[in-house]
Amino acid sequence: MREIGVALLGFGNVGQGAWRILTAHAEDIQRRLGVPVRVRHVLVRDASRARAEAGVAGLLTTDVGAVLADPSVHVVVELVGGVEQAASYVSAAIRARKQVVTANKALLSARGEALFAEAAAAGVDLAFEGAVCGGVPVIRTLREALASDRVQAVSGVVNGTTNFILDAMGAGGSSYAEALARAQVLGFAEADPTLDVSGMDAAQKICLLAQLAFGARVDPSRVHVEGITRLEPVDFALGRELGFALKLVATARRVDGALDVRVHPAYVPVSAPLAQVRGGFNAVQVECAALGPLLLSGQGAGGMPTGAAVVSDIMDVSRNLLSHASGRLPALCAPFLQDVPLRPMGAWRGRHCLRFTVQDAPGVLARIAGVLAEKEISIASIVQRPAQGEGPAQIVVLTHDAGDAAVAAAVGWIDQLATTRARIQVIRVEGGTGPV
Amino acid sequence: MREIGVALLGFGNVGQGAWRILTAHAEDIQRRLGVPVRVRHVLVRDASRARAEAGVAGLLTTDVGAVLADPSVHVVVELVGGVEQAASYVSAAIRARKQVVTANKALLSARGEALFAEAAAAGVDLAFEGAVCGGVPVIRTLREALASDRVQAVSGVVNGTTNFILDAMGAGGSSYAEALARAQVLGFAEADPTLDVSGMDAAQKICLLAQLAFGARVDPSRVHVEGITRLEPVDFALGRELGFALKLVATARRVDGALDVRVHPAYVPVSAPLAQVRGGFNAVQVECAALGPLLLSGQGAGGMPTGAAVVSDIMDVSRNLLSHASGRLPALCAPFLQDVPLRPMGAWRGRHCLRFTVQDAPGVLARIAGVLAEKEISIASIVQRPAQGEGPAQIVVLTHDAGDAAVAAAVGWIDQLATTRARIQVIRVEGGTGPV
Repeated sequence: MREIGVALLGFGNVGQGAWRILTAHAEDIQRRLGVPVRVRHVLVRDASRARAEAGVAGLLTTDVGAVLADPSVHVVVELVGGVEQAASYVSAAIRARKQVVTANKALLSARGEALFAEAAAAGVDLAFEGAVCGGVPVIRTLREALASDRVQAVSGVVNGTTNFILDAMGAGGSSYAEALARAQVLGFAEADPTLDVSGMDAAQKICLLAQLAFGARVDPSRVHVEGITRLEPVDFALGRELGFALKLVATARRVDGALDVRVHPAYVPVSAPLAQVRGGFNAVQVECAALGPLLLSGQGAGGMPTGAAVVSDIMDVSRNLLSHASGRLPALCAPFLQDVPLRPMGAWRGRHCLRFTVQDAPGVLARIAGVLAEKEISIASIVQRPAQGEGPAQIVVLTHDAGDAAVAAAVGWIDQLATTRARIQVIRVEGGTGPV
Repeated sequence: MREIGVALLGFGNVGQGAWRILTAHAEDIQRRLGVPVRVRHVLVRDASRARAEAGVAGLLTTDVGAVLADPSVHVVVELVGGVEQAASYVSAAIRARKQVVTANKALLSARGEALFAEAAAAGVDLAFEGAVCGGVPVIRTLREALASDRVQAVSGVVNGTTNFILDAMGAGGSSYAEALARAQVLGFAEADPTLDVSGMDAAQKICLLAQLAFGARVDPSRVHVEGITRLEPVDFALGRELGFALKLVATARRVDGALDVRVHPAYVPVSAPLAQVRGGFNAVQVECAALGPLLLSGQGAGGMPTGAAVVSDIMDVSRNLLSHASGRLPALCAPFLQDVPLRPMGAWRGRHCLRFTVQDAPGVLARIAGVLAEKEISIASIVQRPAQGEGPAQIVVLTHDAGDAAVAAAVGWIDQLATTRARIQVIRVEGGTGPV
């Protein structure tokens, strides 16, 4: 094999990033791989549109069939996004015995297990480093570096869009709507930000990481997911007073033969690594039996970081091709996934911060404290903030470790009280036992 | 191949760690690899000594020849330490066509290039994740995850012994001698701590990382290395006042076609990631053209973390064996090293913190300022601390960016002044441009 032929399916941000890297680092890549990597086709929707990248014009095509039939294409890189079309392209590429690289988390979340099985049956590689946390090599680390170890937990700040918005709300005191608008203007959030702000993107990522870490089948639709849309500037101010940063944390943890997988806003001690993840960065911490804690952090999205992950994957599957060793490492490290029960959110125990917006009247605090006591929720601290003029007062309770179900029940009761004036804010405290 | 046979050469901390992991995680390892990994021999100095590990007694041997001649041994794990004997074992294992795993940084620093060439010529793998930063997967990351990228710089806190000592000096105000003694009692420092406290261990590590990052031949004996033995408690107190932590930082950076490689104590802004590396932990940050900054951090030493790295390497070379793909990835990512000029330390420019211990007499500060001005060293701040009784005074100067050679020359002049009462302390400021 004198060279590796690559087809890029899709030429958006990541496709352009991969193209630029393949072009700019061609010499290094050839020196490391022993042969050059050549892009043979770039599949686009409109092949007639002018492109800024020199040399790409002659490669543009809209004919995926011709791309997959080309014997000079060894590696197919799926970057079209979405699920249905991407799945059909990946399946077709596998059937055509091409090695496949994808950065499509939604695809793997919806169809990963079936596609990995198709790839294994065909003896081709399906690499996906770019699908989770952009350029942070968390997939490789779980598949290879930690293959000898027993992962106890993976957690992290894995969605840059929400982290950017939370940063803006925390630093500037902006409302959620203002911070989202700013993120959209700066390109950190999409026009329809639902997937990110709902927490579903983070859920898809943590489920993929859980599959790798635990060899377990974990479906994002079955895990507890809360987004960031109900956070208010006061939640950040309160957190600061209590020594916490407010982050969207994704967690997957072994607990007594079950898995505790969830995504929700969490107060993180300011000294913990996850508290220090800025803007669009991502950080993942892994706790292992032998290795102890490990932290990886870097740019979680963007054309160049994700493009770098994609090109490293191209090199990796190319090395296998050159050694006739495609399929040497199963996509999920272990050859198949097991079913492991998920622990319901209600079974989680930990500290909760509860913010009640109440009528400023005698006995309100006592009633709230009474309901909490009845549900056996022990209070670590309680602060009542005076009302502003005629407005409601705020009562902030930080609990000792308490069961999530008990807290939810107590909140349900207190929500019924005539003195409760707004939605009760519940933010869990997490990440105090971080690695470094 | 129905199973992978392993020989452990050496049964110290790391050997015992690897043994425990292979035993405790045997089921997971077999599920991931497809075949079991079985330890066939454990080479020790005294085979008659009782060992705590169940099952190891029958495997002990002192006969390395018999181990290497055993066809049921596929992977030889070199954990004897040192250079000469280890090199002869590794060479013999390569000649016997065994795959080799080592965690021996000193060996690779002294003989790595030759051994990698021997392994490549024989078509066997020589894996060494455990040789640098214990369980932090920095070797894999540089070899594979960043293979597509252009690394601009690698830097880090890569020696846990010195970091533990510096932590103790910084937190408790202990002298270097007291902190070292405490580290020795707690097992964080060896009886002869020279290799660690001189900075040489860190130099060997950063040179290995530079070889991987830049494909360049870098010899630890040719780089600027300063240890921690001359640091005093006052240096930590001063750093805190200035907003700095004091760390032993190892750096390798591309600069205008040359490499800037060095190890020395450095003031690091307290908010930078390297400032937050605690105790025996290690952290490595990599700056890449496409990926941007990446941070990895975890336990840099110890039997279990390093053992986990060793067992992951065993699994990695086993996967290659099972796929008939040994040698699929050159040890240093690229197949050969290039010669790249090293930039002399004197050419480094940056902020310096200078602490002068001087006679408390009129005109001393003016003379010091005069010498600095003559060498065109611009002063960012200067503080004179009053003498305690009859004792000398301290003058602390923080410079703007200044050339290291100019600072050294100025310090040489000031050292000659009759009013200078003790060695002038020079600490460079680093790491302000960290990743996250």
